[in-house]
Amino acid sequence: MKTQIEDILDRIRRGTLTAKQAMNALKDFPFQDLGFAKVDHHREIRKGSPEIIYGLGKTDEQIVKIAAAIVQKGSNLLITRVEASTYAAVKKAVPKAVYNAPGKIIFLKNRPAAAGRGTIFILTAGTSDIPVAEEAYVTCRMFGNRVQRAYDVGVAGLHRLLGEYDRIKKARVVIACAGMEGALPSVVAGLFSVPIIAVPTSVGYGASFKGVAALLAMLNSCPGGVGVVNIDNGFGAAYLASLINH
Amino acid sequence: MKTQIEDILDRIRRGTLTAKQAMNALKDFPFQDLGFAKVDHHREIRKGSPEIIYGLGKTDEQIVKIAAAIVQKGSNLLITRVEASTYAAVKKAVPKAVYNAPGKIIFLKNRPAAAGRGTIFILTAGTSDIPVAEEAYVTCRMFGNRVQRAYDVGVAGLHRLLGEYDRIKKARVVIACAGMEGALPSVVAGLFSVPIIAVPTSVGYGASFKGVAALLAMLNSCPGGVGVVNIDNGFGAAYLASLINH
Amino acid sequence: MKTQIEDILDRIRRGTLTAKQAMNALKDFPFQDLGFAKVDHHREIRKGSPEIIYGLGKTDEQIVKIAAAIVQKGSNLLITRVEASTYAAVKKAVPKAVYNAPGKIIFLKNRPAAAGRGTIFILTAGTSDIPVAEEAYVTCRMFGNRVQRAYDVGVAGLHRLLGEYDRIKKARVVIACAGMEGALPSVVAGLFSVPIIAVPTSVGYGASFKGVAALLAMLNSCPGGVGVVNIDNGFGAAYLASLINH
Amino acid sequence: MKTQIEDILDRIRRGTLTAKQAMNALKDFPFQDLGFAKVDHHREIRKGSPEIIYGLGKTDEQIVKIAAAIVQKGSNLLITRVEASTYAAVKKAVPKAVYNAPGKIIFLKNRPAAAGRGTIFILTAGTSDIPVAEEAYVTCRMFGNRVQRAYDVGVAGLHRLLGEYDRIKKARVVIACAGMEGALPSVVAGLFSVPIIAVPTSVGYGASFKGVAALLAMLNSCPGGVGVVNIDNGFGAAYLASLINH
Amino acid sequence: MKTQIEDILDRIRRGTLTAKQAMNALKDFPFQDLGFAKVDHHREIRKGSPEIIYGLGKTDEQIVKIAAAIVQKGSNLLITRVEASTYAAVKKAVPKAVYNAPGKIIFLKNRPAAAGRGTIFILTAGTSDIPVAEEAYVTCRMFGNRVQRAYDVGVAGLHRLLGEYDRIKKARVVIACAGMEGALPSVVAGLFSVPIIAVPTSVGYGASFKGVAALLAMLNSCPGGVGVVNIDNGFGAAYLASLINH
Amino acid sequence: MKTQIEDILDRIRRGTLTAKQAMNALKDFPFQDLGFAKVDHHREIRKGSPEIIYGLGKTDEQIVKIAAAIVQKGSNLLITRVEASTYAAVKKAVPKAVYNAPGKIIFLKNRPAAAGRGTIFILTAGTSDIPVAEEAYVTCRMFGNRVQRAYDVGVAGLHRLLGEYDRIKKARVVIACAGMEGALPSVVAGLFSVPIIAVPTSVGYGASFKGVAALLAMLNSCPGGVGVVNIDNGFGAAYLASLINH
Amino acid sequence: MKTQIEDILDRIRRGTLTAKQAMNALKDFPFQDLGFAKVDHHREIRKGSPEIIYGLGKTDEQIVKIAAAIVQKGSNLLITRVEASTYAAVKKAVPKAVYNAPGKIIFLKNRPAAAGRGTIFILTAGTSDIPVAEEAYVTCRMFGNRVQRAYDVGVAGLHRLLGEYDRIKKARVVIACAGMEGALPSVVAGLFSVPIIAVPTSVGYGASFKGVAALLAMLNSCPGGVGVVNIDNGFGAAYLASLINH
Amino acid sequence: MKTQIEDILDRIRRGTLTAKQAMNALKDFPFQDLGFAKVDHHREIRKGSPEIIYGLGKTDEQIVKIAAAIVQKGSNLLITRVEASTYAAVKKAVPKAVYNAPGKIIFLKNRPAAAGRGTIFILTAGTSDIPVAEEAYVTCRMFGNRVQRAYDVGVAGLHRLLGEYDRIKKARVVIACAGMEGALPSVVAGLFSVPIIAVPTSVGYGASFKGVAALLAMLNSCPGGVGVVNIDNGFGAAYLASLINH
Repeated sequence: MKTQIEDILDRIRRGTLTAKQAMNALKDFPFQDLGFAKVDHHREIRKGSPEIIYGLGKTDEQIVKIAAAIVQKGSNLLITRVEASTYAAVKKAVPKAVYNAPGKIIFLKNRPAAAGRGTIFILTAGTSDIPVAEEAYVTCRMFGNRVQRAYDVGVAGLHRLLGEYDRIKKARVVIACAGMEGALPSVVAGLFSVPIIAVPTSVGYGASFKGVAALLAMLNSCPGGVGVVNIDNGFGAAYLASLINH
Repeated sequence: MKTQIEDILDRIRRGTLTAKQAMNALKDFPFQDLGFAKVDHHREIRKGSPEIIYGLGKTDEQIVKIAAAIVQKGSNLLITRVEASTYAAVKKAVPKAVYNAPGKIIFLKNRPAAAGRGTIFILTAGTSDIPVAEEAYVTCRMFGNRVQRAYDVGVAGLHRLLGEYDRIKKARVVIACAGMEGALPSVVAGLFSVPIIAVPTSVGYGASFKGVAALLAMLNSCPGGVGVVNIDNGFGAAYLASLINH
Repeated sequence: MKTQIEDILDRIRRGTLTAKQAMNALKDFPFQDLGFAKVDHHREIRKGSPEIIYGLGKTDEQIVKIAAAIVQKGSNLLITRVEASTYAAVKKAVPKAVYNAPGKIIFLKNRPAAAGRGTIFILTAGTSDIPVAEEAYVTCRMFGNRVQRAYDVGVAGLHRLLGEYDRIKKARVVIACAGMEGALPSVVAGLFSVPIIAVPTSVGYGASFKGVAALLAMLNSCPGGVGVVNIDNGFGAAYLASLINH
Repeated sequence: MKTQIEDILDRIRRGTLTAKQAMNALKDFPFQDLGFAKVDHHREIRKGSPEIIYGLGKTDEQIVKIAAAIVQKGSNLLITRVEASTYAAVKKAVPKAVYNAPGKIIFLKNRPAAAGRGTIFILTAGTSDIPVAEEAYVTCRMFGNRVQRAYDVGVAGLHRLLGEYDRIKKARVVIACAGMEGALPSVVAGLFSVPIIAVPTSVGYGASFKGVAALLAMLNSCPGGVGVVNIDNGFGAAYLASLINH
Repeated sequence: MKTQIEDILDRIRRGTLTAKQAMNALKDFPFQDLGFAKVDHHREIRKGSPEIIYGLGKTDEQIVKIAAAIVQKGSNLLITRVEASTYAAVKKAVPKAVYNAPGKIIFLKNRPAAAGRGTIFILTAGTSDIPVAEEAYVTCRMFGNRVQRAYDVGVAGLHRLLGEYDRIKKARVVIACAGMEGALPSVVAGLFSVPIIAVPTSVGYGASFKGVAALLAMLNSCPGGVGVVNIDNGFGAAYLASLINH
Repeated sequence: MKTQIEDILDRIRRGTLTAKQAMNALKDFPFQDLGFAKVDHHREIRKGSPEIIYGLGKTDEQIVKIAAAIVQKGSNLLITRVEASTYAAVKKAVPKAVYNAPGKIIFLKNRPAAAGRGTIFILTAGTSDIPVAEEAYVTCRMFGNRVQRAYDVGVAGLHRLLGEYDRIKKARVVIACAGMEGALPSVVAGLFSVPIIAVPTSVGYGASFKGVAALLAMLNSCPGGVGVVNIDNGFGAAYLASLINH
Repeated sequence: MKTQIEDILDRIRRGTLTAKQAMNALKDFPFQDLGFAKVDHHREIRKGSPEIIYGLGKTDEQIVKIAAAIVQKGSNLLITRVEASTYAAVKKAVPKAVYNAPGKIIFLKNRPAAAGRGTIFILTAGTSDIPVAEEAYVTCRMFGNRVQRAYDVGVAGLHRLLGEYDRIKKARVVIACAGMEGALPSVVAGLFSVPIIAVPTSVGYGASFKGVAALLAMLNSCPGGVGVVNIDNGFGAAYLASLINH
Repeated sequence: MKTQIEDILDRIRRGTLTAKQAMNALKDFPFQDLGFAKVDHHREIRKGSPEIIYGLGKTDEQIVKIAAAIVQKGSNLLITRVEASTYAAVKKAVPKAVYNAPGKIIFLKNRPAAAGRGTIFILTAGTSDIPVAEEAYVTCRMFGNRVQRAYDVGVAGLHRLLGEYDRIKKARVVIACAGMEGALPSVVAGLFSVPIIAVPTSVGYGASFKGVAALLAMLNSCPGGVGVVNIDNGFGAAYLASLINH
């Protein structure tokens, strides 16, 4: 929305746009009203980043309509938190769309995004955290970042993490996904001087309270350099990591 | 119950009603005992507002019986939180009943309700909040209010909200539905001098805790003028908005 | 902020204000920057309502400076959540300021506010809820409303509430303050067709969790017509009630 | 266990029972070891009360075996929290067993229980609370109590509760079941001098947190005389009420 | 309020009381309005039980005024949750008032209360629970009950509890106060067939969460016969126990 | 990982291993990278304990691959928290694998584990806690411990626990599983001088909050000697008990 | 209580003790009734372990009386959670009592306790955790254990923990105290095959929720071998560690 | 710790350091053991960043000793969360130390830190959030960053935030501090394409739960690009922002 709105405000100030024209510009340009959704085409135009649809709570019909509107403009497409059945529906309208099954994320890259400066490194504490990491992976890639991954390197076997020492040391940002006690980001923050995006996952049971234990651990990380996103929010971690990397 | 009971109390005081007659009046008039439910016919008689059935936790058989008892008296009917299968059952007994699928609400308007004074404006932050908003919409309409709607105008794209500036400014009450961080009512309260009924929705995941994050945000709204109802309580918001608007 | 900003936007559109002038207008007019606070003088000018200072977490020095800036413009003044010691400090700078000790609120009325249409009725369940009610009372009065009060009319002795039946029936809005089980708003909502602003108070102990029990009860009120504000938020209830009453 | 153990201890003390005999007595008498369960036949023998099986978390196979062991001794039988499918399995082994479907409770009365002194009165705030009340009803009856019921008499229509005034006044104990804001026990406690067992139910949604709101309200009841049991614990309320009534 | 209101309602019905007279009766009789409090003199007249003042959150001035109004009518007096300094203030107005320091409760018995039928037995798990037990003890005594006490008989040393076996067996009601893991009521319920009022206390630290751990344990008591009151609510337990015992 | 890593570090220090060789050793030895999992073969080699797979959140395909990799090295196998359908999949790859249905745990013992010194005694409060106890039982056995079990010996019938007095007294460690009020470990700790591993189970409903009530009770155990593991964590309790017993 | 009670039960069985004598034995022997406390002298006699007074919530007067009763019997003395002012009071009655100020614990060793088999190693993550660790240290020593300590070795600087590698490897039990994210026990469990007693501390702020974050992390430890005690419960950790070490 | 440890490991590998020498190096170099604290001098040497002391829970004596040890090595000094009284104590040992009173932070810059690439912009929603922002400000400056600040620009007056539009647009990182509903980071994320570190503050009351409401809102931010740190953790936000900016 940002620069777009700014342009319009500037043109109003400079007199090259009347109020009525501005209203029309504002109505037509930054979003397209589908009734149940106001699709923001603006972002894509501005920087080649994909238009994102948060799938949870939307009907397949709504998702397909929004996806179609986005692709029609030639934009990149990213749909998070959707089941395979939704993908089947989307594929009919957008045949080239790809589905990352573990990450439950649909994507389609029509144009290249601006390249990030360094590498984003995605870690998981265990195998069960992989779906969250894959959501982050696809998102990072869609936003034009180089990505490396190391899965199942949690605190129960520190040597597995240390085995990635050299690669992690060179990363520009680290995304660390962990459930249960969520200690991985703290350990990484104790070892590396790099911004860490911590993603608590809902992996665990009982007193993990679906990721709350990991979330609290990450918020209380004793070593500094850790920013936390919502539980299982692989997308959000990737989005923030990409901003840092650009 | 109110004026009805008052009348009875008054008539007792004035001596035009013996205690026994009063007991009978109280037994017959204000509610009809179905064993599992005591249907309050009083409200309808008094002001044309619909008799409301809260569907959750009731069996289809119970709902149909209560609905039939209401419609038999010529009252308006409103059944909240029911699935399509319940609607199928109700439709057999009350063929004219209508179902709003997103709002999961059955309604039937037999008589006009008293008209509200101004307009109630219903906003949602996102597409996924629409079911809650639709429950509110049907309810507002049933209670005789003029209603306007703008969906998907959340804080992620303020320009979409500002695009509704002129219409919102003229509203008598605003109902603002939002999940996730629940910031919409605060932003609206910062922009408009109008009573705002905030409805936290269970849209979100992880640390949204099924609407708790939005609920807390709304209760802590820094700008004043915000009253909060229960999570996903579109009906309650509409009922309160209607009281304010009458 | 509202109409002010709108004016400026309009003048930019009409060309009567250059961008630079607008920036200056925006800088000078709607708020005054004290470094630690940006005082919003706009509201006062627009409708004679007092400029409100939320006292909690501010130093006496900060409060006095903001109060002085407000009074200097001839505005009404309202400072919530301050101890008597802060009042002593304010009184030196603003000698006419008055302090409501139970409500912990400082006020000064320099100009009359627009009069509300009906009466706001303030109820408390018990004696210990009075401080919250008094904060609401002072606020309602400062915003130009007629107010009636009935304290200690909780559910433990329904006859005390019924004794106020006739007066409550005529109110335009009810503010109901209750701690412990917080049942008062539900009972009032069951008896009267009037918008109710429910204020949970932190009165209680143990499983009242400083007002959480009352807050939850109010959010779950079975009878409709109840909007809830934050725990102990007498000011917020009054502000919303005043919006409804105007 | 109580008097039985006491007898054994006494007999040891009096020397009429050797340690070895006592061990055998303790092994044979008070419970029968099925491997996965140690059935306590003692209670039945002592006072004719039914042997209770808490069904949740037990397999059908386990329930049937325990039920068979109980009935074989001629005891009364009460199985709580079981689905109709479990009843089908039990019925094959215990053909005379009866199922109360709303209360999800199986029972069989082989011998009369000791009669209670007064009447236990069971109230529900709404129709959706009936399953909990029925669990309490069956239990009260199995323990030999006279029971009266009034359902759907919640705070949203106080006149429905007042319609039961004379009957409630004569009760020895009241069981009050309510979800949502859980105000019913408080209101009853404000009107009657009778011990009240409050049962919060999981009826509600959002900030009812599956009965927590009602539970907290009941624990914080301002009028005295209210004892609270677990959410949806109709059985526990009945058991306590029966102890009071005997 | 109960029988009093009933009388008035009856007299209205019988025509021996006009509406105006009734209003006056209702105004004068059941409570006395002190502005900040509506003192309910009704209860005392009805059954000789003391008029109770809940001290928390009331100023000394308020407490003294209410106490004076109560004593002036010759009623018994009970003030809970007050510090010694409040007692000093009360003593000036009511010189005969007595203070139980551990229980933080002031009392004065002017007339005998109706005698209870059996004995109420008060248990504590530890020494630190004594203040809560003493609040219960004074209350039970004021309501005319015979009381026995055994302190420090918690689950850490079952032999201390078993040492009271014979006395507890004869009790009509048991009040069991425990903090920390709150297991005492469950153990007592497993040993005795008597109604148990469980009082969780805030004794403990860390994950006791000021009594929440004990509260939850008591609500989940596996053996039946346990009703729970609020954390530290010795008064409420005594009030309920007294109702059962009368 | 422990001694293995130590060896490698030592060899580096002694110069018998170049950095490059060490890297290879570290890469090959302690774990095998399957992409989605890094299997730690090290533990098995070191002490004959099984390689554990935590099944929850892993796909059947992943579990089978890890299991195959483990068995291929001749290691013992233990897979926790898997349904029967997963067992069917594993059985195809590892035909000798055995499934404990109540404990939802797959195991295969290829080599004997080091024998523990004493006996581990596993208790459950009720029949519904058995699945957790069985997970612990299988684990203890796999780690080479002698185990005894007594199920359904909760606080509702203390005589059932006392019936196991002599056997428990001789145990080296006790694992006590209980849901609801979770009092069993406290009672055992009050009776025996033995380390107790307390396992809260999710057995219960309502205010048991899926095991939180039991968890808190156990953490607040008044008698000392109780260490707590996560809710339903039979495996973790067994692992800790085995460490103590070796 | 244990063996003592057992002896008495045995003597009853063998007929060497009449019921009356047994009652006297039970009354005199295992505890001494001070009215507000029942002092358990039994433990001391049995194994030389100190008699423990939990100071929190007890008055100085109560503590001094219990301490005097204990010392009079020649027992060892341990008083936890007391301020220096309480120590001053105790010192008058028990002049040889010693106070560990950081651990807030009073102790007096009159007789040697049975020696433990190995070493207990106490770790803290930070300097602020030391008070909890010192409570554990004094307790361990009083119970006859060899103890080693390493403070401030948390996850923010893993090299500090690795610096203690050789010493920790030889320990029989580890007590690991940590606040904030509470990752220390998980890291230790990943490195050493030793039973770990994890003590969450209330060190931290905000979302540490006074130790809850650390508590949850420890309960969810991915590597096995971790048993958790209550927040700040240094005493409980030491007691359990001592049981394991004996 | 990082590069330092790596160097040592490398030197061991290259044979230029014997194991014994390495142990000494590890002992002497990376930290200095004060008994109660292990001061990590390593960080300073590596990059000129200050050595940080977290003041909460440490005694003045401990803080002074650590501070002296740091300054003695010529390092920069930063002590967070200390009262003025601690500053007085520190000042005696480190006379040049400076105290930022609102931020409760002591600092001393002996050498310049490496300069950051862009500007860090610190925002607060209100005046009461300033202490948290000042902690962040001092920290950012100590780590060599250019910083700009705009305080009191919360959602209640969006024009105040928009007034900073041009400056914020140019920032490399934004730190947004807000209490109450915590909407500021979401609004900023909706307006700017910049990484945002969100700091929930404990400003608020009632249902703000000391910052929990703001924390949850921030974790659930609908617009992406927001990483969250602990409540009131101004230091942590600054540390992460500085990593991003370098």
